[in-house]
Amino acid sequence: MENQTSPPATQPLRVAVLGSTGSIGTQTLDVIAAHPDRFSAVALAAARNATLLAEQAARFKPLLVCLGEGRVGGTGIEDALSGPEGLIEIATHPDVDLVVVATTGAAGWEPTLAAISAGKQVALANKEALVMAGSVIAVEARRRGIPLRPVDSEHSAIWQCIQGEGVGDSLLAAPKGVRKLILTASGGPFRNTPREQMEKVTPGQALAHPTWNMGAKITIDSATLMNKGLEVIEAHWLFDMPYEKLEVVVHPQSIVHSMIEFEDGSTKAQLGVPDMRVPIQYALGYPDHLPYADLPQMDWTQAFTLEFEPPDLDRFPCLGLAWEAGRKGGTYPAVLSAADEEAVRAFLDEKIDFYGIPRLVERALGAHEPITEPDLQTIREIDRDTRARVREWTRTQGSALIR
Amino acid sequence: MENQTSPPATQPLRVAVLGSTGSIGTQTLDVIAAHPDRFSAVALAAARNATLLAEQAARFKPLLVCLGEGRVGGTGIEDALSGPEGLIEIATHPDVDLVVVATTGAAGWEPTLAAISAGKQVALANKEALVMAGSVIAVEARRRGIPLRPVDSEHSAIWQCIQGEGVGDSLLAAPKGVRKLILTASGGPFRNTPREQMEKVTPGQALAHPTWNMGAKITIDSATLMNKGLEVIEAHWLFDMPYEKLEVVVHPQSIVHSMIEFEDGSTKAQLGVPDMRVPIQYALGYPDHLPYADLPQMDWTQAFTLEFEPPDLDRFPCLGLAWEAGRKGGTYPAVLSAADEEAVRAFLDEKIDFYGIPRLVERALGAHEPITEPDLQTIREIDRDTRARVREWTRTQGSALIR
Repeated sequence: MENQTSPPATQPLRVAVLGSTGSIGTQTLDVIAAHPDRFSAVALAAARNATLLAEQAARFKPLLVCLGEGRVGGTGIEDALSGPEGLIEIATHPDVDLVVVATTGAAGWEPTLAAISAGKQVALANKEALVMAGSVIAVEARRRGIPLRPVDSEHSAIWQCIQGEGVGDSLLAAPKGVRKLILTASGGPFRNTPREQMEKVTPGQALAHPTWNMGAKITIDSATLMNKGLEVIEAHWLFDMPYEKLEVVVHPQSIVHSMIEFEDGSTKAQLGVPDMRVPIQYALGYPDHLPYADLPQMDWTQAFTLEFEPPDLDRFPCLGLAWEAGRKGGTYPAVLSAADEEAVRAFLDEKIDFYGIPRLVERALGAHEPITEPDLQTIREIDRDTRARVREWTRTQGSALIR
Repeated sequence: MENQTSPPATQPLRVAVLGSTGSIGTQTLDVIAAHPDRFSAVALAAARNATLLAEQAARFKPLLVCLGEGRVGGTGIEDALSGPEGLIEIATHPDVDLVVVATTGAAGWEPTLAAISAGKQVALANKEALVMAGSVIAVEARRRGIPLRPVDSEHSAIWQCIQGEGVGDSLLAAPKGVRKLILTASGGPFRNTPREQMEKVTPGQALAHPTWNMGAKITIDSATLMNKGLEVIEAHWLFDMPYEKLEVVVHPQSIVHSMIEFEDGSTKAQLGVPDMRVPIQYALGYPDHLPYADLPQMDWTQAFTLEFEPPDLDRFPCLGLAWEAGRKGGTYPAVLSAADEEAVRAFLDEKIDFYGIPRLVERALGAHEPITEPDLQTIREIDRDTRARVREWTRTQGSALIR
């Protein structure tokens, strides 16, 4: 079971940030910098941005630094780690208490599992880890009694709402008396866009997300609602909830971050002005809501309106594909995630059109030979094979994928 | 400290319902009837409605029955209790586990205190008990380690939201890291009515509350927002929160029942289709959210909108008066409550106009000689004196109170 007591003021929580130069990573460092008595950044890892990583290292003076590709040479960091092995070394290092997994894509799930196996607390901002290897990771986390700390605003909202609701310390057990988890979705930039126009959407239009400031992959996933689909699968694993108890509601203001509905109809929601530092800080400081003056506040002296509507699965087929992959289980979610990552890349590279993304994902799911209880090696192979397959389709049939 | 484990199925919680023939009382009996394995009605008390009380007694077969005025003769109940002594006897009876205080007005606060002193659980639907004698009741409840269970939808919402937030078992200790409690108000039937029209409002218009089905006194208090003012004072005592941390937000759909805002800007809300049986059942079944098929559910497949706006203290002076009385403390809230009850009666009897209610309350507060730490006897005297004073004003100057 997780130790819920705060560390003494003389012993800040020692945090490793995997993906420290990305959107979540930099905001995690903002939170750490705001609470030097509570947190210290002892390890930083980035995939490519050597310049920013070096700046962060100079500022936070971590014990460990890792760069995925290239060198940190000339930046004063002499003994940087590198590659996937470096991430594993950080995730399992004895001087690390909590690992923030803020890498995107499949790069996150191996360090996540390594951190859990090493008995570390894990704050998870990487959707693919649970989507691809949810059965392996969830089983390992349960076995070790280490609840995963969600960083996504939606799962953080649910986590905050289930406090005191009979889940005890374990985030991985279903809360008592819950009828439904309701994930909210902003609806993305095309919430009210007719299908005909959506067919012609450019990467530039899709990257103009109205509310959250995020990386390109997640922004495109938000525009297709694949992001919400991946979150449904994540919620299934995080909260041990069957898919029929998961619901998605479009809420364009992004004020209500998600909700839980109990058997008596009572519903709890977590809300606030959108700012990723709120769920990040909660994941680090759990169970405390730490004061941090930079965080935005609701202004109750101003009138405001919150809208809710069901999602349109016809215009947003990715959401339905994710639900289908989740329900089928086994290796289907890994195929979904891998195919989506490659399809989004192809869309950003203007090799396929917007609806090419769900078409590629659907084709990958249809071509997949399922395996019911995949081990890690199987998931790795399926990830690799799916990516190769989708890249091949994109390369040879890119124009055919543009309707 | 309260025992939070559910009683075994063979030992239903033995519930006394004070005010069993009123709106909250009858809905409490609906909840009890829906869960015979969890609850049994062992005592019923009503002020005047002998016929309905007799029907309830025939159905629930309680050990004790009490009628405030008149007789239960001819109804098969031979040994009914009567008057205030009867309420105290029920509230302290050894065969009672939990007392639902659903009487309106000052009749509720003496049995509330008696029940706490006897170590009973108390589910409180009577606002005046905490408003008038909050210091005495809160101190006694803290001393006995008996958290009061709120039945008001707003306080129930806050109670549900603070679960797991460092309050432990005691509802009477302020939750950790909370910046604000935000009580929602429907705004009543005159939310958008210009002041000139509000001056001429009739009792019939004021009784047409748009959302909740309630008694006449509370309905008028909802129309003046005095109801919300009393709830602010109640929240002050229930959650040990200073007045500057209490906020009121008008929310006409009455879907969000109240909210708490933490130091990090994160806000939790409890919501649902308005139905008083939800908070009543939670107060009885705490900490469980019991399934009950009759309770309404949110329909997430339909689009809906929630509006929020600040209250207009100019058109609703009762809210400001309540806040002022609460901040001044001492005997001022008792004067507020007593004066309001008499003023509402005068309005319903068409002796004064709608704004005669705040004018009478304001005059009573202005004429009051405050006492800082009143004991029960003092509060009783102030209640009696204030009522007499307001009745006298109404009798002699009723026409002068109509502008």
